[in-house]
Amino acid sequence: MTTVEAFNHQNKKLAWGPQIDLSGLDYLYPPQNVKPYTPPPPGVDNLGISSTDSFLVPNVGEFTVNFEGYVRVARSQPTSNEWNTSDVFTNLIDMCMRGEESGIGEIIVTLNPDVLSTGQLRTPHADLACEKPSKACRMAVGALFKMPLLNLTLFNKEPIELTIDDVRMIPPAGNPGEGRIYQILPLFHRENPDGLPAAYLTSLQFRMGHYITEAKIQGILQG
Amino acid sequence: MTTVEAFNHQNKKLAWGPQIDLSGLDYLYPPQNVKPYTPPPPGVDNLGISSTDSFLVPNVGEFTVNFEGYVRVARSQPTSNEWNTSDVFTNLIDMCMRGEESGIGEIIVTLNPDVLSTGQLRTPHADLACEKPSKACRMAVGALFKMPLLNLTLFNKEPIELTIDDVRMIPPAGNPGEGRIYQILPLFHRENPDGLPAAYLTSLQFRMGHYITEAKIQGILQG
Repeated sequence: MTTVEAFNHQNKKLAWGPQIDLSGLDYLYPPQNVKPYTPPPPGVDNLGISSTDSFLVPNVGEFTVNFEGYVRVARSQPTSNEWNTSDVFTNLIDMCMRGEESGIGEIIVTLNPDVLSTGQLRTPHADLACEKPSKACRMAVGALFKMPLLNLTLFNKEPIELTIDDVRMIPPAGNPGEGRIYQILPLFHRENPDGLPAAYLTSLQFRMGHYITEAKIQGILQG
Repeated sequence: MTTVEAFNHQNKKLAWGPQIDLSGLDYLYPPQNVKPYTPPPPGVDNLGISSTDSFLVPNVGEFTVNFEGYVRVARSQPTSNEWNTSDVFTNLIDMCMRGEESGIGEIIVTLNPDVLSTGQLRTPHADLACEKPSKACRMAVGALFKMPLLNLTLFNKEPIELTIDDVRMIPPAGNPGEGRIYQILPLFHRENPDGLPAAYLTSLQFRMGHYITEAKIQGILQG
């Protein structure tokens, strides 16, 4: 992320949650020593990610696409040094995932620059008194789905809610996660944003990867 | 709704879906003859609503509140005259619900005027070829939760997703519905919108009421 991009990040017009001050945060690459059940110092995690998303295009059909890519997640200073009661807030500050599907061609998923995608790791209320509770992770994401073959870019107006349960360390590398989509989440044409939905996201299953190098990230960006 | 309010409605900055042109739409009150499995002409439905919402306030606890009130829902021209393939888009243009809970006092839920709350009725893709399929209804809502006793107003940044299944007529008066909340939906202080979440909505069950009179609506508004 360039300084200009980081600056723009700090001046988003629409945010779904608290904005994290990126100044002074280290970008974290492998190897990292992540301690379980321990609130970590703040930083920016560079992680792999894979996702299987299903789309419904009215009058065309449903199709399912496997994606591979990376995310950069900025984490706040935990609200407490104690695992059970600490909240950690997150901003998804960069993402690129690539997938391909016959007939549709390549789909490139990136962050929507008009939205600040935000999240939170928190111990479920009912588990606060447990000895070593797992945390629950949630993030509200605004994405662009670029389809070069169709000369089309879709985006969501309601956030895509990504959740990871059973989080025993931060970041939850290797954990499976789910997009909490109830039947349909409308997607809109970027060039006709006020029009009717052009397609729908109907399901999303993902898996957080582990720390990856900047060279691998640049490889994903270049496709 | 006054002309000025309607004008403001047409100029929302943030919309979660398509905006409905309110000009020329009739406000519909009882009695109404609603035909099942029939795409209706556009209009504004004035309906009763009841809801049971649970809130989590960190370091205070969880509490559940029963609400009663009304909604005004603007409906678009259906995209087709045929029930199965028709989509109907909606805007929630007015809402007031009142509930009370010991310790917290009265809670008044109204629309967030900074957001256009939008929704859609649509036949699930898998049911398109059925003879008389039920439709699914979804709406993304931005609300204010005013708590006069605590001198506090909370609001949501991510939409509250309300869904109604098994819709056999439009509007789905009398149908039960659910807020699709996965564990927690953050709520923020209206006077500190960029701060950390002040509370969480943890569940929401509602029931659409039937057409109600303007006199009853005014009674709800006056409390």
